[in-house]
Amino acid sequence: MAFFPASLENLIDKFASLPGIGRKSAQRLAFHILSLPEGEAEGFANAILEAKAHVNCCKVCQNLTEGEVCSVCASNRRDKSTVCVVSEPRDVLSIERSHEYNGVYHVLHGVLSPISHVGPDDIRITELVKRVSDADSEISEIIMATNPDTEGDATAMYISRLLKPFDVKVTRLAYGIPVGSNLEFADEATLLRAIEGRIEL
Amino acid sequence: MAFFPASLENLIDKFASLPGIGRKSAQRLAFHILSLPEGEAEGFANAILEAKAHVNCCKVCQNLTEGEVCSVCASNRRDKSTVCVVSEPRDVLSIERSHEYNGVYHVLHGVLSPISHVGPDDIRITELVKRVSDADSEISEIIMATNPDTEGDATAMYISRLLKPFDVKVTRLAYGIPVGSNLEFADEATLLRAIEGRIEL
Repeated sequence: MAFFPASLENLIDKFASLPGIGRKSAQRLAFHILSLPEGEAEGFANAILEAKAHVNCCKVCQNLTEGEVCSVCASNRRDKSTVCVVSEPRDVLSIERSHEYNGVYHVLHGVLSPISHVGPDDIRITELVKRVSDADSEISEIIMATNPDTEGDATAMYISRLLKPFDVKVTRLAYGIPVGSNLEFADEATLLRAIEGRIEL
Repeated sequence: MAFFPASLENLIDKFASLPGIGRKSAQRLAFHILSLPEGEAEGFANAILEAKAHVNCCKVCQNLTEGEVCSVCASNRRDKSTVCVVSEPRDVLSIERSHEYNGVYHVLHGVLSPISHVGPDDIRITELVKRVSDADSEISEIIMATNPDTEGDATAMYISRLLKPFDVKVTRLAYGIPVGSNLEFADEATLLRAIEGRIEL
């Protein structure tokens, strides 16, 4: 049922193909684009082309960057002996926001997931092992910071086993009650992990 | 806090400027664009440019179209004596879906809204009056199908007064209980309108 002009239908289709955007939202977005001044719509189209053309993966940590090496890996102030392993580029952003971590990163671009047919070769595990096994590697600790769910846990476990032969400490982010929350509302699994991981004061 | 490459930040900004898309969703959409094959991202950018370049307003009914006149206005099978006035192009789609209406349309591209500073000159009211007042006009009925809310009602009322001098019947879509719904859940305003608009069986 194409009641809209073909090029508008096409734009709606494109928006509807994005994750989390349904047919109605896609229509709304396409109408918004049509209502933009000429230059702005062009700017949007160019932003897509330029991001696609310029953004690639850092050859060290696989995080998204525009050059060969990302700003974190290129920095002299970062501690190259500690590597925090995350599943997605946005997780780097979350950790950077805490202003607490001074090491470098490794971005896996996914987690192991047998259900979605994601195996060890589909994410950047080989690159991590290569970084650790490299002759002039200064890495002494790998912090596994994949999400605390089944797939994130399995990925962390898998990688920690792969790294056993090398002389590095593999750690995992602490589980526990989120700061500012209430014991009353903590689920049992979290509470159990919080008790297991209790520390001496 | 630009932790992402500049061109990626720019793309995120563009998505975040769309209506109903927050910062987090914009990130998700931008990452999706980066994960697309080369050709598809280009296709997206082109879809924006082409929709913007080719879509314009039908010179008769102001609905969106690619030619001079839209398919509804160009059709011989449509009854040109009845004009259904709607606020947005998507409303045409909704009415066409009912497969009940055989007249033509007039798209206002908005409703009168003093709060948002939308006055009579900001929407396509002049074009409607011109259509009705035209010497060789065949229009005998105008159906006001703006939304049944304060602004839609006010717009319908305003236009019906403007059209008083001309020899046309101005009607309004019926208010009432939606088909398939339950009296129990109908709000009072709807129920009141349903009682007022009752018909003899």
